[in-house]
Amino acid sequence: MAGDQSNRTGAVLEIDLAGIAENWRLLRRRAAPADCAAVVKADAYGLGAIPVAGALAAAGCGRFFVATLAEGIALRAALPRRCGIAVLNGPVEGSATEFCEHRLLPVLNDPAQIAEWRALALCRGPLPAMLQIDTGMARLGLSPREFASFVDSSAERAGIDWRALLSHLACADTPLHPLNEAQRQRFADAHARLPGWPASLAASSGIFLGSRYHFDFVRPGAALFGVNPQPGTPNPMRQIVHLRARILQIREIDAGQPVGYGAAHVMAAAGRLATVAVGYADGWQRSLSHRGTGLIGGRRVPLLGRVSMDLAVFDVSGVDPALARPGGFIELLGEARGVDDAAAEAGTIGYEILVALGRRYHRVYRDGSSAC
Amino acid sequence: MAGDQSNRTGAVLEIDLAGIAENWRLLRRRAAPADCAAVVKADAYGLGAIPVAGALAAAGCGRFFVATLAEGIALRAALPRRCGIAVLNGPVEGSATEFCEHRLLPVLNDPAQIAEWRALALCRGPLPAMLQIDTGMARLGLSPREFASFVDSSAERAGIDWRALLSHLACADTPLHPLNEAQRQRFADAHARLPGWPASLAASSGIFLGSRYHFDFVRPGAALFGVNPQPGTPNPMRQIVHLRARILQIREIDAGQPVGYGAAHVMAAAGRLATVAVGYADGWQRSLSHRGTGLIGGRRVPLLGRVSMDLAVFDVSGVDPALARPGGFIELLGEARGVDDAAAEAGTIGYEILVALGRRYHRVYRDGSSAC
Repeated sequence: MAGDQSNRTGAVLEIDLAGIAENWRLLRRRAAPADCAAVVKADAYGLGAIPVAGALAAAGCGRFFVATLAEGIALRAALPRRCGIAVLNGPVEGSATEFCEHRLLPVLNDPAQIAEWRALALCRGPLPAMLQIDTGMARLGLSPREFASFVDSSAERAGIDWRALLSHLACADTPLHPLNEAQRQRFADAHARLPGWPASLAASSGIFLGSRYHFDFVRPGAALFGVNPQPGTPNPMRQIVHLRARILQIREIDAGQPVGYGAAHVMAAAGRLATVAVGYADGWQRSLSHRGTGLIGGRRVPLLGRVSMDLAVFDVSGVDPALARPGGFIELLGEARGVDDAAAEAGTIGYEILVALGRRYHRVYRDGSSAC
Repeated sequence: MAGDQSNRTGAVLEIDLAGIAENWRLLRRRAAPADCAAVVKADAYGLGAIPVAGALAAAGCGRFFVATLAEGIALRAALPRRCGIAVLNGPVEGSATEFCEHRLLPVLNDPAQIAEWRALALCRGPLPAMLQIDTGMARLGLSPREFASFVDSSAERAGIDWRALLSHLACADTPLHPLNEAQRQRFADAHARLPGWPASLAASSGIFLGSRYHFDFVRPGAALFGVNPQPGTPNPMRQIVHLRARILQIREIDAGQPVGYGAAHVMAAAGRLATVAVGYADGWQRSLSHRGTGLIGGRRVPLLGRVSMDLAVFDVSGVDPALARPGGFIELLGEARGVDDAAAEAGTIGYEILVALGRRYHRVYRDGSSAC
């Protein structure tokens, strides 16, 4: 049994680390001469921050972003010392010293976070940080009024080794949305008041809004993992997730028979069903009920009825029984069926499909030549 | 910093183990004289199979159900030897020997699984298993035709120490659905053909359909964790999950300003916003965009705009600023706001709210007296 534990679980999730590195190189070329960071928050969008960031560091990426201190601490232990790790949420009250201890860069989002970091810097000497300003999302970052006070007060800026000015676009996946240019202009105006500061505005979609959005570095996340940064146009990114659900059982079913919870699907004709070992506890969301599809032998098969917690049922009536058999697989994500395709079926975005991928899969990381 | 790491993350998830045990006792009383098992698949519905099953074993529960072999192996190492652990998905091809090695009871769902288990029993002597039959879900379990063949062939039944006959109700949360009685009758008819076999049909909701559904043991899952087994009537179960999201930032905002991705919310009036460190990567689903709520100081506050991956924004305009301050908390789940309430807002069921709870929370298990 040693080595292959894939038959202990219901599905196999393969993550193509070489493909992630290839996506990063594509984005870096697109953003050049700006530098290209990588956002690996939320456990690298559910794919495993440590293997993903390791592969990107090996490809030359030197700046990483996570969301929380705990994510930063875990990643710090795994990355080369030369790699910077910034924490987007900044220090929660009382946690500033831990940022120092683990050599993490806080993104300071409000005057209280700046004050706490400066107080620590008074004891320890200049400490590095990034500053985020809000240019139109009303989420994190200094408000225009707070920023005006910040630039007018040299005392507020003192004691901190400022590594970057950041902001975040609200509508970058909609190129013609007027808020894009408004945010860019506000950001450029703010940046003009902090001469010499490196600046970063664009995430995945922002990179494709053109070079005026690139500033000193860009910080893609979702596009690294195959999400289309320009919805509605051909996807330039490689699909790097391959998810196959194991068929547990095949059954012949008569017309008129109900399928699944609530008897919410009733067979219009006799057919053959495959029950697979993936359900909403695996992130195969319940909103895929009646709407999801999978692939088997290159053929699209519909999910019938409601997704269960651990199981889903597909109609394989038209599929060669040599393929649709217990122990076989139905492909849920892959090259021919990307994360955005699944998201469209689920009524969400590819980002949520990725982060919802569950913990029960047998995970295989591929580095381009073999499993690792 | 030692001891309390809650400020490394954005939210605190408290799980009341004593409350789970209390819920189990309530269900056991309700089902008596039938025995009461516990379903702890999907990591005990996202709450942690090992602490949850440990608490239930201490309360007297002797039978546990998980979905996959990997879940069974993990739980076997943590539970007393006297506790039985059954694996609902049964053995995937080639995994039967691992069930033996880890003393796990497979639930055999189709003739091939029975044949594989019997083949192993020929070498090792009689091996225990449960048999599942399908009575109306078309998901897992022998079809009526397969079951007829099974009871007619003593060879098919030989060599296995049959511990139970199982089936699963499709519509138990809808007491008046005619499929309930149809499934019960089919199950009773099948059971009559296997005299002496223990039998189990009811999960959480089935327990409340009355004693004719109880057979020899019941096997609740969701109700243990606070989901109402009888939607539309008062919930007899205790809420055992308490989720508080930390406020990272408070901002004053003017009328007409957009909030969040897509500028999908625009402030009708000036107000005050709280950005909390919980997002859809934490299982706070994107379907809660524009619809979710939280509680602060006993007051309900609406989620504005779209849920982000790591963040969500609430309107706290009417809340005492001494409560709605950075470092404070907005309650997302608790006694006054149960999992079914969150599910109604998200357009799903409490089960999915539970299993989607993410990995980033600071988790605290309470045993009734203190944190453990």
